[in-house]
Amino acid sequence: MPMNTSFKTSLKTIERLCVYRRILRNIETDGIDNIYSHQLAKLAGVSAAQIRRDLMVIGYTGSPIKGYQVSGLLNSISEFLDKPGCQNICIVGVGNLGRAILAYIPGRYTHLHIVAGFDVDEHKINRVIVGCRCYHINKLSEIVKEKNITVAIIATPAENAQAVVDKLIASGVKSILNFAPVTLKVPEDVFVEYMDISVALEKTAYFAKCRRE
Amino acid sequence: MPMNTSFKTSLKTIERLCVYRRILRNIETDGIDNIYSHQLAKLAGVSAAQIRRDLMVIGYTGSPIKGYQVSGLLNSISEFLDKPGCQNICIVGVGNLGRAILAYIPGRYTHLHIVAGFDVDEHKINRVIVGCRCYHINKLSEIVKEKNITVAIIATPAENAQAVVDKLIASGVKSILNFAPVTLKVPEDVFVEYMDISVALEKTAYFAKCRRE
Repeated sequence: MPMNTSFKTSLKTIERLCVYRRILRNIETDGIDNIYSHQLAKLAGVSAAQIRRDLMVIGYTGSPIKGYQVSGLLNSISEFLDKPGCQNICIVGVGNLGRAILAYIPGRYTHLHIVAGFDVDEHKINRVIVGCRCYHINKLSEIVKEKNITVAIIATPAENAQAVVDKLIASGVKSILNFAPVTLKVPEDVFVEYMDISVALEKTAYFAKCRRE
Repeated sequence: MPMNTSFKTSLKTIERLCVYRRILRNIETDGIDNIYSHQLAKLAGVSAAQIRRDLMVIGYTGSPIKGYQVSGLLNSISEFLDKPGCQNICIVGVGNLGRAILAYIPGRYTHLHIVAGFDVDEHKINRVIVGCRCYHINKLSEIVKEKNITVAIIATPAENAQAVVDKLIASGVKSILNFAPVTLKVPEDVFVEYMDISVALEKTAYFAKCRRE
């Protein structure tokens, strides 16, 4: 997927730290207190050396005897990824996909709050949909500024995505998670993460075909 | 994200070819017949040299004067990605996310058919949901073999994903698009593409935070 080159160095590290955190939260729930780098490596599908390199970035070191302390490592990763505090998020497009994303997210993130949804459908305006207050797209600039929203999720049709993104950026959004099947034009200092379901499915199907041949 | 190393060489090329196809379909709909590599590069967010290298893989060359012929290039990419023919796909988990995926996909792919959905919810069994016949998860092995399904989409809760994937692989599935927030253990010859919404959102939020600081 296209991505802004200025972020390339740490992009993969950040992604892996998010994966480690997801795994650590699960094993903490299971009552496990310590984990060795090779065990975490296996769960994350990477090498133990990779784990150690990534945790060096956040300044966390384990003990050769007990490995990593799960709660301590979780705190260190969260400190690194989440501080200095909460971030407000909006979602644009509250159709099938937007609703699925909203249903998927609440409760998982203490530092990420989806504080507004935007849509053009009059039936959705001023309603709370899957826990999220929905506004008319005309209010986008106003609400984004008022609520200090810095992250946006795009779940609009492809043809509307660029216009929406231009407005979001003009209103202060710095980072975008894009589900619309379209490459966005953004300034150098804005980050875009692409989640293109159609491209992912085509790629997956291609490899099934190769395996069958 | 973790990925099977044996596919690494061509993974990015395949992904980019899927993106080029998406773009070419759009511009063909807009009535554009020819496109230069630098124009396609701009729309895809990659370099023109990258485009030329990728198209060399599929054996397509443009004209220095007219650039690439859109319909010819589309055919070449599709020939490369889709042949020798149709592939049958199933989706496991027909909840919010599963339904959103189903709503997103029909009509876009002539060579990819979602022929079965699986769920544990009795209310969904034997119903057609967003165009897809839904079966009980107990029927998974039987239906996957009967319909020659080689690609599966996982939209189950995290805790059910691995058991489902084990069954799918035992029944002949070779390639998996995984939306469940969990790293899957699969044999070397099975491909997994991860679409982890929570990791994507955390990563996006991290970069917004960096831009704000």
